[in-house]
Amino acid sequence: MSAVKTSVARVESVTPIVWKGTHLALLDQRVLPGELCYLDCRSAEDVAAAIHGMAVRGAPAIGIAAAYGLVLALRDNAAAMPAAVATLAASRPTAVNLRWALERMQRQWEQHADVGLLEAEAIRIHQEDLAQNLQMGAFGAALIAPGAQIVTHCNTGALATGGHGTALGVIRTAYAQGRVVRVYNTETRPWLQGARLTAWELQQEGIPAKLVADGAVAHLMSREKIDWVIVGADRIAANGDTANKIGTYALAVAARRHGVKFMVVAPSGTFDLHCPDGAHIPIEERAAAELTEFRGAAIAPAGFDAFNPVFDVTPAALIDAIVCERGVIEKPTRERVLPVLS
Amino acid sequence: MSAVKTSVARVESVTPIVWKGTHLALLDQRVLPGELCYLDCRSAEDVAAAIHGMAVRGAPAIGIAAAYGLVLALRDNAAAMPAAVATLAASRPTAVNLRWALERMQRQWEQHADVGLLEAEAIRIHQEDLAQNLQMGAFGAALIAPGAQIVTHCNTGALATGGHGTALGVIRTAYAQGRVVRVYNTETRPWLQGARLTAWELQQEGIPAKLVADGAVAHLMSREKIDWVIVGADRIAANGDTANKIGTYALAVAARRHGVKFMVVAPSGTFDLHCPDGAHIPIEERAAAELTEFRGAAIAPAGFDAFNPVFDVTPAALIDAIVCERGVIEKPTRERVLPVLS
Repeated sequence: MSAVKTSVARVESVTPIVWKGTHLALLDQRVLPGELCYLDCRSAEDVAAAIHGMAVRGAPAIGIAAAYGLVLALRDNAAAMPAAVATLAASRPTAVNLRWALERMQRQWEQHADVGLLEAEAIRIHQEDLAQNLQMGAFGAALIAPGAQIVTHCNTGALATGGHGTALGVIRTAYAQGRVVRVYNTETRPWLQGARLTAWELQQEGIPAKLVADGAVAHLMSREKIDWVIVGADRIAANGDTANKIGTYALAVAARRHGVKFMVVAPSGTFDLHCPDGAHIPIEERAAAELTEFRGAAIAPAGFDAFNPVFDVTPAALIDAIVCERGVIEKPTRERVLPVLS
Repeated sequence: MSAVKTSVARVESVTPIVWKGTHLALLDQRVLPGELCYLDCRSAEDVAAAIHGMAVRGAPAIGIAAAYGLVLALRDNAAAMPAAVATLAASRPTAVNLRWALERMQRQWEQHADVGLLEAEAIRIHQEDLAQNLQMGAFGAALIAPGAQIVTHCNTGALATGGHGTALGVIRTAYAQGRVVRVYNTETRPWLQGARLTAWELQQEGIPAKLVADGAVAHLMSREKIDWVIVGADRIAANGDTANKIGTYALAVAARRHGVKFMVVAPSGTFDLHCPDGAHIPIEERAAAELTEFRGAAIAPAGFDAFNPVFDVTPAALIDAIVCERGVIEKPTRERVLPVLS
């Protein structure tokens, strides 16, 4: 995979996923905000490596990138679908958008076996995501009373999606409507997506915001009036249990104790109706080095072990609203999820 | 202040506070575990700068260092007591051990006005701390049933105290008694005392341990049987409300939800009986740069603001036991604290 460096002035002009016709350019989010660098992916393997290596991240963005990865694979080899799907599906096992996008692309291929139509389907997945995010922004913002202080976790903005964002999209829309007075964005250890990416998007938008350590949010809630915690999702089970970035569950537990409302924002592709509840969601664990090292330098003694799950599960009982492009599911249960999703 | 580098092989041979007769040598904990470097302090101002700059940290260690700081001040100038006390007291406003040690040294000076006796008092404060920690280790370990998995936060070990440690001292004693099968130590953002210091002490002791991100502990509790969260304290109010390193309160909230017991370990000098409850404990806030930068490199966009409290308050109702050298206070209330402390 070859990396091409470029520079841009403002985040609005940054598109993290750029389909170039001949290849896919992915903004390398590992080096933001210090560097703006695109990775040119020319095969499904390149795309899978970028997803696994977290150059591209955010459940919707992963699904979009994987769809383009299948176009790259099928253009080179009309028999490549099964192997390419397997390679891409394995790159981040928890992300259900990834599986959803791959299945949608497979159905298109089974119907027409036409690379041009497959490419059009990938572009449609990408464009639909942006439209869904704008719709979720409108639904979610309507739940927020003016004067709100909001906590958000990880990065769920334009960088994580086809544009606008999911949870950060709701915050964007609500801020534009004059409903938000301040955002507290968590660091989001160990990858610091909140410090690096969400902070950058908030700063570009001019939204008043403060960075907060993940472990400090419960204290923040005890001292300040916080109205909502708003987060994205990597997978939502049929009963509303939600897998999201590690640290989300701790925020939900603290929010419930302090009477702070908790909103999950994710497109309908994030629901996995085959998964009855959170106990059935596999949780990806990653290398200890992600905790014991920082940018290659040791921050713990050599050889020290770590427990490094990427996601956790927030039970539906701690969620006040799930917002998807089809509507709002308040106090989610299986009985309330199914009518909206089917 | 001049820094003298030295190297040692094992943590047991490291004494973080070394009274040299002519000056005070403080192990610079900011550069551990990568470097072992002592700072030679020759005045109260040197000691205050080392405390404020967090070269020395941990409530008991701060109190011990400050006591030696007064010896340095009074030896140069017999009229220095009020100014030196003010300088040292301002170096970390939340640490009640600091005030406690300064008041004890002031009483000694008022009685005898003798630098030799003042020096002996500082050495006594230092030695008493180690003895107290061994006593607390015995009291705390007796509460832990064999086979325990324990979460601890920040660093409360030999590095934070006169030796053995407070919360980590209980873990040490309990492990030596065969009661502990694994420790999960949090990173402890933003200073990473858990990753840098506690991990190092645990590794030196050969205690099975895993590092865990602060925000991942609630998830850990949902997946593994965790028996105790054991933490230190910077100040304990008369009703048992406990100020400790930021992130402690979030752990206590998660522990209560999961039926995990919560132990605070701190010498009696940590109690502030003039302080009726946690609402009266001032919470130190530090610079945004501690969150937006890491070792001088930006991890958030330039100019981004942060909420960076150093401590939080865990209400007594979330605490199962406070262990001090005088005994164990189970389910602390004002009525249960006062008989043990007076």
